[in-house]
Amino acid sequence: MLQKTNRLTLVEQVAHQLEALIESGNWEVGKRIPPEPELMEQLAVSRNTLREAIRALTHAGLLTTRQGDGTYVSASSALGPMLQKRISRTDALETLEVRQALEREAAYLAAQRRSEQDLLDMRRCLEERQAAIHDRNDEGYAYWDVRFHMAVVAAAGNRLLQDLYSHITEGMRAAVLEVYGLNNSDYFEHTHELLYQAIADQHAEKAVEAVQLYINESKKHL
Amino acid sequence: MLQKTNRLTLVEQVAHQLEALIESGNWEVGKRIPPEPELMEQLAVSRNTLREAIRALTHAGLLTTRQGDGTYVSASSALGPMLQKRISRTDALETLEVRQALEREAAYLAAQRRSEQDLLDMRRCLEERQAAIHDRNDEGYAYWDVRFHMAVVAAAGNRLLQDLYSHITEGMRAAVLEVYGLNNSDYFEHTHELLYQAIADQHAEKAVEAVQLYINESKKHL
Repeated sequence: MLQKTNRLTLVEQVAHQLEALIESGNWEVGKRIPPEPELMEQLAVSRNTLREAIRALTHAGLLTTRQGDGTYVSASSALGPMLQKRISRTDALETLEVRQALEREAAYLAAQRRSEQDLLDMRRCLEERQAAIHDRNDEGYAYWDVRFHMAVVAAAGNRLLQDLYSHITEGMRAAVLEVYGLNNSDYFEHTHELLYQAIADQHAEKAVEAVQLYINESKKHL
Repeated sequence: MLQKTNRLTLVEQVAHQLEALIESGNWEVGKRIPPEPELMEQLAVSRNTLREAIRALTHAGLLTTRQGDGTYVSASSALGPMLQKRISRTDALETLEVRQALEREAAYLAAQRRSEQDLLDMRRCLEERQAAIHDRNDEGYAYWDVRFHMAVVAAAGNRLLQDLYSHITEGMRAAVLEVYGLNNSDYFEHTHELLYQAIADQHAEKAVEAVQLYINESKKHL
């Protein structure tokens, strides 16, 4: 029995060590992790122990094994895959209400904390979004629209808010495309400009009002 | 190589099946899961495959194995342990800003959607909280204070909001105890009553104002 306890703890220990490498960014998303023999030597564990630890992280969505190729980092934190899974089971109105909560707070904080670089990022997203509308490019439009909201949240200077928001938005990208189709772009165009201007002017209340306007409009489309 | 692929997929399949039983509530939190031989037969898998699947779920925080006793369900969704881990690395102001976002939205929605039962739950929490203050019972005070906020969020009728909020609150229970110590209870007493009354009166704007008052007060204590 003692042997088993030790083994279980060892797998957990190895899993936690690998997880820390991923979360700290030492192992980057999209990159292949070092080969098995190298990891076995560095961690001083058997092949089986290493494989079980990798499997635990695969289940958590952090790693992906490509047969005959190797194991790749697929997410920087297990929170992302978990939240996306949770969102996929949530109806659109519930998700929109949570987005509203996070976006209002983000707009308020962004108006107080935004840097000049934040404003440039937001402005670029609005311009690319406009160009995509002009080209009748649905995908490009949805991409830059989401990117604009992420730029606002980034300007709020709160990493937890940013993490929650980006994972939730990732989980609802399909719904975003549906609600914010090109046909409804005019109204959102106006409210997005209002939001940008309020943040540029450091007017927190007006920024929150702009969020409320486009969220209310989105609710009508549900 | 083919053998390995199959085995890996099998472990993942079994892990997903067990996870579904937990998330659907068929396997309740705090209960022991069925013995190994029974699960092996039902799933038609080997002991090793089953154990690896259980280990993956243990790593995700869903199961806990007690040596010589059995394996217990420790969380209803992997989101909880992940969020709590994320919160534990976040500073108090960032967490408070996210709480503010979720509590404002919850207060607004609760004022519109609360049932008579929701009001009774909230009222009971406020009374137990008051009794704990009277008894100079720190732990009881913190417990019922958090329970009151959870009752408000429950009254909002949004499961995603409720999940996020309860996991985040769980992750910051220590901080809650610190900020909302008995010495600061008077001010929070007043604002909590304001919040209760606004929700009872179905006055959404006033409910949001009450949240803003106690969040601002909390920020002063950081």
